[in-house]
Amino acid sequence: MLTDTQLERWLREDLGHHDVTNQVPGDTTGRLVATEPGVVAGLEAATAVFEYLDVDICACLEDGTVIEPGDELLRVEGPTRAVLRGERVAVNLAGHASGIATRTHQAVEAARAESDTVRIAATRKTTPGLRGLEKRAVVAGGGDTHRLDLSHMVMVKDNHIAEMGLEEAIDHFEERTSFATKLDVEVETVDDAPRAAEAGADIVLLDNMTPAETSDAVSLLAEYDGVLAEASGGITCETVADYAATDVDVISMGSLTHSAPALDCSFRTGE
Amino acid sequence: MLTDTQLERWLREDLGHHDVTNQVPGDTTGRLVATEPGVVAGLEAATAVFEYLDVDICACLEDGTVIEPGDELLRVEGPTRAVLRGERVAVNLAGHASGIATRTHQAVEAARAESDTVRIAATRKTTPGLRGLEKRAVVAGGGDTHRLDLSHMVMVKDNHIAEMGLEEAIDHFEERTSFATKLDVEVETVDDAPRAAEAGADIVLLDNMTPAETSDAVSLLAEYDGVLAEASGGITCETVADYAATDVDVISMGSLTHSAPALDCSFRTGE
Amino acid sequence: MLTDTQLERWLREDLGHHDVTNQVPGDTTGRLVATEPGVVAGLEAATAVFEYLDVDICACLEDGTVIEPGDELLRVEGPTRAVLRGERVAVNLAGHASGIATRTHQAVEAARAESDTVRIAATRKTTPGLRGLEKRAVVAGGGDTHRLDLSHMVMVKDNHIAEMGLEEAIDHFEERTSFATKLDVEVETVDDAPRAAEAGADIVLLDNMTPAETSDAVSLLAEYDGVLAEASGGITCETVADYAATDVDVISMGSLTHSAPALDCSFRTGE
Amino acid sequence: MLTDTQLERWLREDLGHHDVTNQVPGDTTGRLVATEPGVVAGLEAATAVFEYLDVDICACLEDGTVIEPGDELLRVEGPTRAVLRGERVAVNLAGHASGIATRTHQAVEAARAESDTVRIAATRKTTPGLRGLEKRAVVAGGGDTHRLDLSHMVMVKDNHIAEMGLEEAIDHFEERTSFATKLDVEVETVDDAPRAAEAGADIVLLDNMTPAETSDAVSLLAEYDGVLAEASGGITCETVADYAATDVDVISMGSLTHSAPALDCSFRTGE
Amino acid sequence: MLTDTQLERWLREDLGHHDVTNQVPGDTTGRLVATEPGVVAGLEAATAVFEYLDVDICACLEDGTVIEPGDELLRVEGPTRAVLRGERVAVNLAGHASGIATRTHQAVEAARAESDTVRIAATRKTTPGLRGLEKRAVVAGGGDTHRLDLSHMVMVKDNHIAEMGLEEAIDHFEERTSFATKLDVEVETVDDAPRAAEAGADIVLLDNMTPAETSDAVSLLAEYDGVLAEASGGITCETVADYAATDVDVISMGSLTHSAPALDCSFRTGE
Amino acid sequence: MLTDTQLERWLREDLGHHDVTNQVPGDTTGRLVATEPGVVAGLEAATAVFEYLDVDICACLEDGTVIEPGDELLRVEGPTRAVLRGERVAVNLAGHASGIATRTHQAVEAARAESDTVRIAATRKTTPGLRGLEKRAVVAGGGDTHRLDLSHMVMVKDNHIAEMGLEEAIDHFEERTSFATKLDVEVETVDDAPRAAEAGADIVLLDNMTPAETSDAVSLLAEYDGVLAEASGGITCETVADYAATDVDVISMGSLTHSAPALDCSFRTGE
Repeated sequence: MLTDTQLERWLREDLGHHDVTNQVPGDTTGRLVATEPGVVAGLEAATAVFEYLDVDICACLEDGTVIEPGDELLRVEGPTRAVLRGERVAVNLAGHASGIATRTHQAVEAARAESDTVRIAATRKTTPGLRGLEKRAVVAGGGDTHRLDLSHMVMVKDNHIAEMGLEEAIDHFEERTSFATKLDVEVETVDDAPRAAEAGADIVLLDNMTPAETSDAVSLLAEYDGVLAEASGGITCETVADYAATDVDVISMGSLTHSAPALDCSFRTGE
Repeated sequence: MLTDTQLERWLREDLGHHDVTNQVPGDTTGRLVATEPGVVAGLEAATAVFEYLDVDICACLEDGTVIEPGDELLRVEGPTRAVLRGERVAVNLAGHASGIATRTHQAVEAARAESDTVRIAATRKTTPGLRGLEKRAVVAGGGDTHRLDLSHMVMVKDNHIAEMGLEEAIDHFEERTSFATKLDVEVETVDDAPRAAEAGADIVLLDNMTPAETSDAVSLLAEYDGVLAEASGGITCETVADYAATDVDVISMGSLTHSAPALDCSFRTGE
Repeated sequence: MLTDTQLERWLREDLGHHDVTNQVPGDTTGRLVATEPGVVAGLEAATAVFEYLDVDICACLEDGTVIEPGDELLRVEGPTRAVLRGERVAVNLAGHASGIATRTHQAVEAARAESDTVRIAATRKTTPGLRGLEKRAVVAGGGDTHRLDLSHMVMVKDNHIAEMGLEEAIDHFEERTSFATKLDVEVETVDDAPRAAEAGADIVLLDNMTPAETSDAVSLLAEYDGVLAEASGGITCETVADYAATDVDVISMGSLTHSAPALDCSFRTGE
Repeated sequence: MLTDTQLERWLREDLGHHDVTNQVPGDTTGRLVATEPGVVAGLEAATAVFEYLDVDICACLEDGTVIEPGDELLRVEGPTRAVLRGERVAVNLAGHASGIATRTHQAVEAARAESDTVRIAATRKTTPGLRGLEKRAVVAGGGDTHRLDLSHMVMVKDNHIAEMGLEEAIDHFEERTSFATKLDVEVETVDDAPRAAEAGADIVLLDNMTPAETSDAVSLLAEYDGVLAEASGGITCETVADYAATDVDVISMGSLTHSAPALDCSFRTGE
Repeated sequence: MLTDTQLERWLREDLGHHDVTNQVPGDTTGRLVATEPGVVAGLEAATAVFEYLDVDICACLEDGTVIEPGDELLRVEGPTRAVLRGERVAVNLAGHASGIATRTHQAVEAARAESDTVRIAATRKTTPGLRGLEKRAVVAGGGDTHRLDLSHMVMVKDNHIAEMGLEEAIDHFEERTSFATKLDVEVETVDDAPRAAEAGADIVLLDNMTPAETSDAVSLLAEYDGVLAEASGGITCETVADYAATDVDVISMGSLTHSAPALDCSFRTGE
Repeated sequence: MLTDTQLERWLREDLGHHDVTNQVPGDTTGRLVATEPGVVAGLEAATAVFEYLDVDICACLEDGTVIEPGDELLRVEGPTRAVLRGERVAVNLAGHASGIATRTHQAVEAARAESDTVRIAATRKTTPGLRGLEKRAVVAGGGDTHRLDLSHMVMVKDNHIAEMGLEEAIDHFEERTSFATKLDVEVETVDDAPRAAEAGADIVLLDNMTPAETSDAVSLLAEYDGVLAEASGGITCETVADYAATDVDVISMGSLTHSAPALDCSFRTGE
């Protein structure tokens, strides 16, 4: 949920103290139009920007829609001044989120060539202030949010294991973890994967392994019913199919959120 | 300036209500290390995150430094819990800003092959909530901020001109513009460029022109002393040199901020 | 994590525009002393209040400590004006959180008479603005947080089931749920419990059942490896042992957070 | 007055980053129904939660209404998603405030058996962030707010008197107190009561006295026209009548706000 | 109490997104020096601005000090960049508050010629966002805050009386007013003054009366022990002595806060 | 743009926790009426206050309108409670802003006697929290905003010049200044004026010069095409004409914002 407080902060950031440019009388329409193909997201946020400014929403695609150049994503109508004031923030949000959805969609498509079930997941490598928007954009692109924040799922990481030992670290955190929360354990060698599952991991994260190593670890984990295998570490749209072919359950990719180029779209008024 | 309010918002966004993962006693060090070459930015923000959490800053590169893989960007020391809590937000900020600085640097280098003086400028196509961080990252990469917000510079756009006529629109806004503020006028044909300069533009923005058209417009503007020519519209790192060769004064590129991939770096604790 | 923004809001709420009462020169000490037995919590929050006002923390018990009347929970030292200004907010926080920890501890003790493993969990029935403080107080009292917010765990409720049917509702939400998130399904009859487990529930919530019904449902769920049984609905400190005797895995009680009386303690200055 | 900022904070606290549970299409009604007798309060706040989410308010009792099990407190209608998102926060507010109103009403009823005029007042022992809500709930239950914040009334406390002496402390604060502000002086012995009145107290707070001592002090204060006598310190619903019988003017009780159990009510959708 | 949130808001308001002007290395001192005579106030606020920016406070006058041109009000030392960034906000606060203190002092001095005891009070006609700062500036100048906000004191105004009648309106509000709160009743004729006192007013506000009328009303009120008389409505520094001569208890003047010119002072660095 | 967050802060500042005074049922009208002549401003802000409280705006003058006593500036209609709650904040905003517009108008009128083109500009000496409101009030009075914040225009000040030398300081900042930003250079002697223009100043600020010195400097600057001359330093409504007679381009006056008395107006309900 976007709050009015966030919308205000973003609008003020763009307006400054005395905006002369948009002091235009009368009413106008505004249309957000795609100029390249992709998957749309962030329209709920763009819509909220205009609603905050009392601009009417006439039409709006649903997040997750596959679009072609020329498709109209959003149509608004209202006082010219308000339409122009909302334009830049709305376009920045929609372009950014749609870029993430499009990149996610590409990764999912690439993985689907090798696996019908693998989940393509984001990470916590999101833009500060936009965690929710970006996670929802990943979902719009067919991906999985992965953990939303540190409190959502407990991850046992290399530094915990280095300090306490693998089984001890898992025990330590299991005791402190609510029944409502899953436990994801990061391992760096194939042999550690079944040890983590044995010790109580709900998910075993295979960190920085090659597809071949990943495949070996996935085989060893197959014995542990209900335990998921997750591949992570530098996986890109180019290599995602190789990991998908290993039968791993989840592939997580930071680049979905931190390196997706914005989807190009243009905002046209008065048409 | 980053405020405590922003830092809190970003940290809470990542922490949630009950973070078990980072409940680790003792002290540790943390090092942010580059894993690819580029230009560093956002370290002031990353530093502020750790300072908010009462973690000491031991060493920190200056924004704008050209880095190689393995270079240490930032070293901190403090309670393990605080170091781990700040890690993700700090890395996300530094990776994002350094990606922008690196992309800007690439564009500047490409343009320098053809022109010693052309300025490579960002636009208002920034991520909502991060306007200042991203503009400063552009400066770190050798670029120009362009206008910081709507109140910073008045831009006369195609919709204004469509409604009022070119000269009339410029007159309209000149009257309403402070002596402290520049007037940038967007034109879509070569012929309109000198008309805009004649009518009082401080800067003439040549929108979506080819390099050849840009070159023609720049020649016509040469007569108007003190008036700057700016090229804009879909210019990329691949085409920036062609525009730089036209002797245009400013080239502005939205992709510097909205589509730069994050600079890859890793955070290592306890070393 | 308490933020400065929260602390400020609470302090301003208590101060108003012109506080004459606490305009006292000099320095003083302040001691928070228990006046009844219980379990302490919220001291991290009380401490943060004083730190915000630049008052030194001399000594502080750990959250979760069992206390007797006369025990000193917290000792501070600083400018009299700052100590007096922080007093009321700090005491209100510590008294409220310790009341919750104490009530939780009582419920856990009552349940332990019948079961060594049952978890006593809170609900989302918390005081608006204090979710994190109250959930951590439950943990201090030996309880389990249960879900922290709507995004932490997906719960399929009676209204979902009424509309879609049990299995269909579970399928519907399973498709939309991240691999990182558990699925808790609320059932109202004993027979529905195994249906929910079969259809994919991670946890089956037995809503408003008697201990006898709960016991029957728990037996039926025993076949489903890894599926947890949760009892909920009007369970009190008086009845919790009866539910614990059913071998249910989790007992959740709204009264832990919404109806625990504050733990009585007094704040003494200048001693 | 509840502000949008508060409402947002409470809703976000409960929602998290990606709420799947309430992604339900269509419209629904919601009814808040009492499941135990009491006095209702906090409905203005509950109403504001739904209004923020653009849910229509169809019917709503007035704060202060005495209710029986089965009474409908509030009826709303709107998009299912919005109704479900507001439910928990609205119920938590109304249950908490109604619990306070109900407890206050009980104390007032107990006191009325002995005195027609005594005021039952709250203290500053309120839940941080909810001062206004809780004070208004006390009023709904027939009580008196007492001082709203430190700036509302000046209280001369034991630590002031210990340091300066009784008369000197009163003089000290009288000089610094606006004509618009009353002066309440806390005394710990019967003999000090008339001394405080003589020296200028508007109200004399008889701290931690027995009913017999209170009665003696009240008699001595009867000579001072316009000076009120207030009893305070560990007074409960069980002992309040004994104090009311002393003819004291005000009885203040921290437990009205810090230890009232929530009033049980349930929220039913789609009926 | 000024909060960090307020300080941040004020500093960001003045800084914008990319402040080049103050990017100066090294350390410096800063001195705030009076350039005209007056009474100083707002130095606590000015000090807080610099402390927020980690600038050291070397010396600072106390609010309420009478100053001459050339007097140093505040001396700070720290990084040049931080000193320059704080300068404008700190000077604006101190100049504004000192202007109010100085104007108040002038009014008090004028009144003292006729009365040793009359209180010169401010109103709620303050600058939005600066209520506390301005009320404390009035106190620094020797004045009285009057009511701090609507909840501090109940005022029965002409519109209440027009609707309900004088005695009825007083009864109506007395019933709803806490014992901790005073009741101020506004009357527009001399005859209404004793009626208001009789009906229960703590203070009778004589609205827009001449000094002669005020004097008559004050005489009539003399019979009511403990009831204060307040004169209000267009009273200026020129006419305040005439009202003081009437033996009225309080004279309230909106111009103290809404029309006091700033006290001129200059900020000198590097000396 | 005023945000809801600001409006809430101002309304809460005036309301406190429990406002009894305005608990009045029914509906009413409210009219803001001028009681002295002037120029109106801040009505957009006053309007926003009432709109936030769901009070209808029936009629409203435009900012910048010249008014006479008795003119109605704003008429509203709505629930009595809401009208009364908004009254004080709305009147304080409109009175403050109109005072600034009126003072600016007086200065402009005085200057017009000597020059048709000189701009009367404000400074950054504004009330913290009200920068935008006050700058827009200056525009309403016929003035120029001057720089809106530190990022809007770069000013080279005496301390920069003292440290680096005049030409060197200008070079230093020119390199760091965006093409979108003007450079204003402060000089203290007539001779330095042409040096500053030669070195690249867009505007030369003639600081604390007499009208005669100003006139000399303006003559010397006439050679530098496009360079503006600005007079500043202690200029008042009394002396502004003398400066206007020098043909200087801009006269900036801090007193427009920091020392303008509020415009007197009254708010009448139920008429």
